[in-house]
Amino acid sequence: MTKTEIGKMIEGLRGKKLGMYHKDFLLTWEKSRDELEATFIVADTLRAMRSAGLSPRIWDSGIAVSNFRDNSTRTRFSFASACDLLGLYIQDLDEGKSQIAHGETVRETANMISFLSEAIGIRDDMYLGEGDKYQREVGKALDEGLAAGVLPDRPTVVNLQSDIDHPTQSMADLLHLSHHFGGLDKLKGKKIAMSWAYSPSYGKPLSVPQGIIGLASRFGMEISLAHPEGYDLIPEVVALSAKQAKESGGSFKHVNSMDEAFADADIVYPKSWAPFDVMQKRVPLLKNGDQAALKDLEKQCLANNARFKDWECTEAKMKLTKGGKALYMHCLPADITDVSCTAGEVAASVFERYRDDTYREASYKPYIIAAMILLGKSKDPAATLARVLERGSARSQL
Amino acid sequence: MTKTEIGKMIEGLRGKKLGMYHKDFLLTWEKSRDELEATFIVADTLRAMRSAGLSPRIWDSGIAVSNFRDNSTRTRFSFASACDLLGLYIQDLDEGKSQIAHGETVRETANMISFLSEAIGIRDDMYLGEGDKYQREVGKALDEGLAAGVLPDRPTVVNLQSDIDHPTQSMADLLHLSHHFGGLDKLKGKKIAMSWAYSPSYGKPLSVPQGIIGLASRFGMEISLAHPEGYDLIPEVVALSAKQAKESGGSFKHVNSMDEAFADADIVYPKSWAPFDVMQKRVPLLKNGDQAALKDLEKQCLANNARFKDWECTEAKMKLTKGGKALYMHCLPADITDVSCTAGEVAASVFERYRDDTYREASYKPYIIAAMILLGKSKDPAATLARVLERGSARSQL
Amino acid sequence: MTKTEIGKMIEGLRGKKLGMYHKDFLLTWEKSRDELEATFIVADTLRAMRSAGLSPRIWDSGIAVSNFRDNSTRTRFSFASACDLLGLYIQDLDEGKSQIAHGETVRETANMISFLSEAIGIRDDMYLGEGDKYQREVGKALDEGLAAGVLPDRPTVVNLQSDIDHPTQSMADLLHLSHHFGGLDKLKGKKIAMSWAYSPSYGKPLSVPQGIIGLASRFGMEISLAHPEGYDLIPEVVALSAKQAKESGGSFKHVNSMDEAFADADIVYPKSWAPFDVMQKRVPLLKNGDQAALKDLEKQCLANNARFKDWECTEAKMKLTKGGKALYMHCLPADITDVSCTAGEVAASVFERYRDDTYREASYKPYIIAAMILLGKSKDPAATLARVLERGSARSQL
Repeated sequence: MTKTEIGKMIEGLRGKKLGMYHKDFLLTWEKSRDELEATFIVADTLRAMRSAGLSPRIWDSGIAVSNFRDNSTRTRFSFASACDLLGLYIQDLDEGKSQIAHGETVRETANMISFLSEAIGIRDDMYLGEGDKYQREVGKALDEGLAAGVLPDRPTVVNLQSDIDHPTQSMADLLHLSHHFGGLDKLKGKKIAMSWAYSPSYGKPLSVPQGIIGLASRFGMEISLAHPEGYDLIPEVVALSAKQAKESGGSFKHVNSMDEAFADADIVYPKSWAPFDVMQKRVPLLKNGDQAALKDLEKQCLANNARFKDWECTEAKMKLTKGGKALYMHCLPADITDVSCTAGEVAASVFERYRDDTYREASYKPYIIAAMILLGKSKDPAATLARVLERGSARSQL
Repeated sequence: MTKTEIGKMIEGLRGKKLGMYHKDFLLTWEKSRDELEATFIVADTLRAMRSAGLSPRIWDSGIAVSNFRDNSTRTRFSFASACDLLGLYIQDLDEGKSQIAHGETVRETANMISFLSEAIGIRDDMYLGEGDKYQREVGKALDEGLAAGVLPDRPTVVNLQSDIDHPTQSMADLLHLSHHFGGLDKLKGKKIAMSWAYSPSYGKPLSVPQGIIGLASRFGMEISLAHPEGYDLIPEVVALSAKQAKESGGSFKHVNSMDEAFADADIVYPKSWAPFDVMQKRVPLLKNGDQAALKDLEKQCLANNARFKDWECTEAKMKLTKGGKALYMHCLPADITDVSCTAGEVAASVFERYRDDTYREASYKPYIIAAMILLGKSKDPAATLARVLERGSARSQL
Repeated sequence: MTKTEIGKMIEGLRGKKLGMYHKDFLLTWEKSRDELEATFIVADTLRAMRSAGLSPRIWDSGIAVSNFRDNSTRTRFSFASACDLLGLYIQDLDEGKSQIAHGETVRETANMISFLSEAIGIRDDMYLGEGDKYQREVGKALDEGLAAGVLPDRPTVVNLQSDIDHPTQSMADLLHLSHHFGGLDKLKGKKIAMSWAYSPSYGKPLSVPQGIIGLASRFGMEISLAHPEGYDLIPEVVALSAKQAKESGGSFKHVNSMDEAFADADIVYPKSWAPFDVMQKRVPLLKNGDQAALKDLEKQCLANNARFKDWECTEAKMKLTKGGKALYMHCLPADITDVSCTAGEVAASVFERYRDDTYREASYKPYIIAAMILLGKSKDPAATLARVLERGSARSQL
């Protein structure tokens, strides 16, 4: 892409009404349609600049805090790549190593790590009712720190996965769809099947399916949410998604068979998650470190899971989709039958056919994260990006 | 602040007699008054440049080694922020992961980590008689490596807390006081109460109170050191502080009641620490990993501590201070009664009133660390800073 | 060195026939003589630029992945220093923290960490038959990811130690020899003794001695490989080294006494390693976590080791070398008799005399790693370096 073409992408931001400056990115449904679109535009702009050999570096120095309260490879790398691309240095807030373990309050820590920080990425999805709450506490402390003149500026908080939403995943997924189908407007009327799938594991978070229905419902898509009885998501998120789907000119169906969801679908997203009520039961057990009860709960849950081994994205199931050619999506890693387990979410041949698509899907995440940071920090993102484009520094001397 | 004003701050360095180049910053009392003042000026200059949107970046590449032998959040972030601001990349020397655990000598490791390094930050405060010694061993190895032509340049060692001193804390504290009272010269004659306070924990290091009395005594302050019988600091540091106080036109009193220390004080610094002799007894137990004996020592110590629960910075105690309005200080995190514990160092209402002040106090640390690094690396810091100011690069494109 | 002189070094690259672009650096014997020489030239150029105060920074942003599957201090710092010098940000792929532990395949992970990555350094030397294989799997996945258009560019893999070779060590060692003797061409005909030496430890990898004989044999050196019976290296590597030595106009002798190897040697490299067959026996035990059997194997191995305590590089042994003044080499840390153990690989007085030489030897490693990365990423390294030299940015504002 030429500089002129990239400049035109940036121009696309001019008409958007944005209120993202000094705000956090926690749930997509707190953002306006303009704000979501701006995020996509900024992500695409940063990607285009990098592809054209131009450095999108915004900062000459500055800290990005990464706070991972759960394991992660891809999100950790996405966050690091995004921050490095913008010129930020990542400093882990490792609660094992740090004095948080010694009883420091969230409020104090939030200020202590933010004197020279621009962004804080938080992944906290273990405890239902906790992750989003914690992220808001951090955001509130930053507001207070800024107001008190303790902080020279306010770092922006990016939700890298909470108990409620996984916006960096869902936004990357939607950007992938937008590129795949030729534009955001092309998503209107497309049917997406967000379906539970069998996995030999237990306790997978709800944030991905919630994030997908919560975001796809903003773009006029026909959403079909499917899962076995008892595998509910957070009821409020389901209700909100249904409402949003209607408002955006799409539809929302809640069914209890994978076949029904897959029928004539343009896109399928078969993925395991734990039942909402099991996740609720886990919270006090995890907090008390009650290993015996956790083991017992896991056993029950796995036994129940085993009743739904036929919730697998097989070739037969794929045949039910539109022309048999729906786009398969997954946040990865998938449980692939006969590859990573004996029975899983997806048949090996299906996954193999879409492997590169799932990788491409994942490749948008660093740019989405970078866009979220930029929009939380710049008063006038179009002007910032235009300035960076005008500067025209090469990303490398190769 | 304008560039011209910042330029004038830098001019303030011209008259100072400095011998900090290729030296380490381990104890404030090894530095001359000119050197301490230069450190404050450089810290303020870097902060002013950043506030004005100018990048104080000194290096285009270079490693800063962080060697934390004890837990830390705030010092770790301060060090990272300082190094990143100057353009250095932080590489942890994690003795768990590294071959130091396999018997490598300090001398060898010091050279191996320093081929492309500019600074080494060390926190080692667990063992009385060890931390400072270790830092000096590292410094000596670097001198030898430079002399032998093995190292292209000498990284500067910054003490991020030793058994004896905590200069990045005490210097940040004094810079805070200087800003609060309107200049370093305004500290002359101000009374500061460095007082022991009750905490439900055990084994807190002596380096903060030692650092405070060792530094405040350089600026003509009236120091009142208070603690219960048996809670002595290292005797040599106390003696030195008394001597320095006299020389600088201040005074030094050693009392055994918080009330006496607080009486008419301008500043109070109530903080728990472990008795010197307990810290000495711990060393062989820690080295031998004698958990039973450590547990026993802790029990005795906590029982003894419990006799002094009235050493708490309450509203009543604050009323004893000058106009009832002394500035409360703490290195954080504080043990706050009814917040982080049932009985602690400070009453919740007192802490709450000074919360933002303690955060502001902490905010100087990154700049103090950056100043220490710069002064250990630049032959002519005024010229270096003037060059960076002249360059005038923006810290961000926002 | 002046810019003109550095420019001439770069010119030395022009005649070389290179096929390193988009390839990995895994084994030195997969590289042509031209490619090895180019690596030395690039390393020396980067070092000369840094010494002259010029920044060799190539990238404005970009990720370098460090994947250490075994402990390391010096290699970790060398890799970090190399990457930082080129402008890359190091992100650890820590398999403890990451989802690799959850069954992700190598193929997927390789793509997930590479969207914005330029280099991947891997140390994997624990399991005979595994390390090199793993590195090739990663490389293959990157080739596929690039071909599929999933990756915007291909990161280059650098072997930071495998079960077979340790090219960053051996290349740094040879560059040290080249500087010590006044040029690569001066190595022809020099006798190097790569000898086993006694150590009180067990299970040291074979990659260093294999790397040394596999590389020294490319430069016409007279190689003498010595070890007690039963302490064989991988037979294929020994055979290849013998063949290469002949082809390059040198020689290869396999002897079973340190004395014979040391006789009239110009260079001695006495170092402990585990017998090949013991390393083979360890693999299934390590995989199964069979601690009892590992303990037993260690016991046997140490008992056998103890029969060869006289394989120590003493003053008497050094007297056997050319003029009694052979250059002593070691990859460090060495087991030094009466310093790090009661009986080890080398006498304290010998090590002490050569201490600075071994440090100097180690100092080339960051530049060798940086050169390997640059050569895997640049289509025309001479042009890239000329451009960077021409740019002439200062590495620091000091």
